[in-house]
Amino acid sequence: MQKSNRALLARISLLIIVAFASAIGLGKTLAPGSPVTLDTLDYRVEATVWLDQLKYPWALEFIDRDTALVSEIGGNLLLVKNGKKPDQPVAGTPAVFRSGQGGLMDVALDPAFDRNGWVYLAYSHRLEGAKSGDNRAMTRIVRGHIRDNTWVDQEVLFEARPEHYLDSGIHFGSRIQFDRDGLLYFSIGERGRAQQAQDITRPNGKIHRIHADGSIPKDNPFVDSPGAYPSIFSYGNRNPQGLALHPVTGALWEAEHGPRGGDELNLIEAGRNYGWPAITYGIDYSGKPVSEFVSLPGMEQPVLYWRPSIATCAIDFYTGSLFPKWRNRLLVSALGFQELRLLTIDRDRVLHQEILMKDLGRVRDVKTGPDGAIYAVLNAPDSIIRLTPRE
Amino acid sequence: MQKSNRALLARISLLIIVAFASAIGLGKTLAPGSPVTLDTLDYRVEATVWLDQLKYPWALEFIDRDTALVSEIGGNLLLVKNGKKPDQPVAGTPAVFRSGQGGLMDVALDPAFDRNGWVYLAYSHRLEGAKSGDNRAMTRIVRGHIRDNTWVDQEVLFEARPEHYLDSGIHFGSRIQFDRDGLLYFSIGERGRAQQAQDITRPNGKIHRIHADGSIPKDNPFVDSPGAYPSIFSYGNRNPQGLALHPVTGALWEAEHGPRGGDELNLIEAGRNYGWPAITYGIDYSGKPVSEFVSLPGMEQPVLYWRPSIATCAIDFYTGSLFPKWRNRLLVSALGFQELRLLTIDRDRVLHQEILMKDLGRVRDVKTGPDGAIYAVLNAPDSIIRLTPRE
Repeated sequence: MQKSNRALLARISLLIIVAFASAIGLGKTLAPGSPVTLDTLDYRVEATVWLDQLKYPWALEFIDRDTALVSEIGGNLLLVKNGKKPDQPVAGTPAVFRSGQGGLMDVALDPAFDRNGWVYLAYSHRLEGAKSGDNRAMTRIVRGHIRDNTWVDQEVLFEARPEHYLDSGIHFGSRIQFDRDGLLYFSIGERGRAQQAQDITRPNGKIHRIHADGSIPKDNPFVDSPGAYPSIFSYGNRNPQGLALHPVTGALWEAEHGPRGGDELNLIEAGRNYGWPAITYGIDYSGKPVSEFVSLPGMEQPVLYWRPSIATCAIDFYTGSLFPKWRNRLLVSALGFQELRLLTIDRDRVLHQEILMKDLGRVRDVKTGPDGAIYAVLNAPDSIIRLTPRE
Repeated sequence: MQKSNRALLARISLLIIVAFASAIGLGKTLAPGSPVTLDTLDYRVEATVWLDQLKYPWALEFIDRDTALVSEIGGNLLLVKNGKKPDQPVAGTPAVFRSGQGGLMDVALDPAFDRNGWVYLAYSHRLEGAKSGDNRAMTRIVRGHIRDNTWVDQEVLFEARPEHYLDSGIHFGSRIQFDRDGLLYFSIGERGRAQQAQDITRPNGKIHRIHADGSIPKDNPFVDSPGAYPSIFSYGNRNPQGLALHPVTGALWEAEHGPRGGDELNLIEAGRNYGWPAITYGIDYSGKPVSEFVSLPGMEQPVLYWRPSIATCAIDFYTGSLFPKWRNRLLVSALGFQELRLLTIDRDRVLHQEILMKDLGRVRDVKTGPDGAIYAVLNAPDSIIRLTPRE
């Protein structure tokens, strides 16, 4: 690209940002007590700070109308009651390897949480017994109970083989999502080792599926493949940070943080190869090509790709009643573009895409709350905001 | 919507327009001899005026590398040689009913044109024998030969029953598209009578399919339905002004000018109901609702809808060699938004959408030329522009 062209593109980007910022009523700062109004196609929406004074929050999970769990990447798990930050985090949660994109990531509840109280965590775990200076780490999945604000009864559900721990601070994933049969899906990014996403004897660059106790479902696609991780459900996934179950079809949707121009939305099915890095619509962030192919036989096309990259993170289908026109539509969060998008889904395709919110912060997680409001976890500024219809 | 909100939206729209105009390098005027550069994701593109001094051109069809036919809505059919406007239009073409959106519309060639020389026209036709002041009209399809710049051998391939001519100046359609079997598809809009799009005893609001000589294919879906037009292939189509055949799959894609917020891209299949006006993502341009439903059993969802409406018109799959990365992608023209868009298609879904061109004029038709360039027919200013890669 020529320099004049770059300058033009920079100017363009700025203008588009200005336009969108105005579109969404922003350029304003969202501070406690001073809500911001978002003008969307269907509703005027009020965005208010629901929780702040957080430090790099990563995930939000509601236990009930009044209680929620919030993870912070540094390792803190917060039990939030009535929108109040607790004095102390949950004690005794696992030590996380805090480096780069690694740390405490997703938190999820057992589908039978009311009966069994299991809470699930995804975090980056340093190789056991590693010497000082040995920074090999990998995504690990555990569950435990929270009793008297203390993490107890921990069980390790998934961890990589020691030889597969990697000295890399990037692409840990990770989201946790249960399906209707109570099976647990979780994601691990390719840890900066793109080719390993194609290797089913490696755990990285994959969506995994396990039973809630960590055991392997007998019908997992690679249980009979020598050397494969039997938990692998799909492969060729670059850095999946969003997983959500369609409320009507039960299908598993995934958002994948891609290379430059290659963010993807995928429908995840057993045993499928989603192509990274053999096929991609993006290029490396350095500007170098990744692959000359955007499609190849035997590899899945995304449902949608974002070019330029919005830096997609969490996704959630809206299932509340406060925004009836949005029911079963997909909320998509974006870090770099600082957006919350709303996608109209029909079967395996996206009919429409709207930017609901822009430039309030990097959107790390998004959830339909039990009250029907939409909650968005922001980084920079670190907070959780609540979206409700404005009368 | 509150007034303050409307003002905000107006401001937003303006800013977005300004941003996009800058994005596409415009705000400039495209005049003969002064090309404009478009910065797209894949290419720097040069847009040059290929033909001007036209009067409301509607459609472009290439006969060979040096020869093309251009229709003007007033009724003129122009045989363009080497990019030069002829001194005289083709003589003896049918008299068109020029009113509102009606007039001479699409022009198409027989797949075996080299052997048989048939040229097909779609135009609005005034009721035969109507008295002065009786403005009932309907879309009609004819074919003929052009000999010595004169239209001869005309055959009427389709015309509505006289009782179905309507006094309305809107939603005539119309595009003509042949499939791989040599069957001819053409579109008629609902002529402002929305409910009639659901009535297969009416010709309006439909995609029709006939043999090239006007006879009815035996396997048309409604040949055995009493009172139905046997040429009907699909129904519930509001105002289809774009038809294109996928170069790999052979599937028929359609772009439908919708109500406010309800422009659609559809995959057209035999006997299907595309829902207008029973279901729609749009509302009436008056602001009144059209339907409370966006989906109903037995009716097709669009592949994509545009909200706000871009005012979609012609579509064409790019099949040339000048822009290899764009092969088999879908070019979509827009009148109101004055855009040319490029859509990445996979099976029955749209993976990505890019605005290639903005604000050069209302884009009425788009075609891959035999030379691999992209040709866009513009209204206001009336011209045809040619897009090529810029070194």
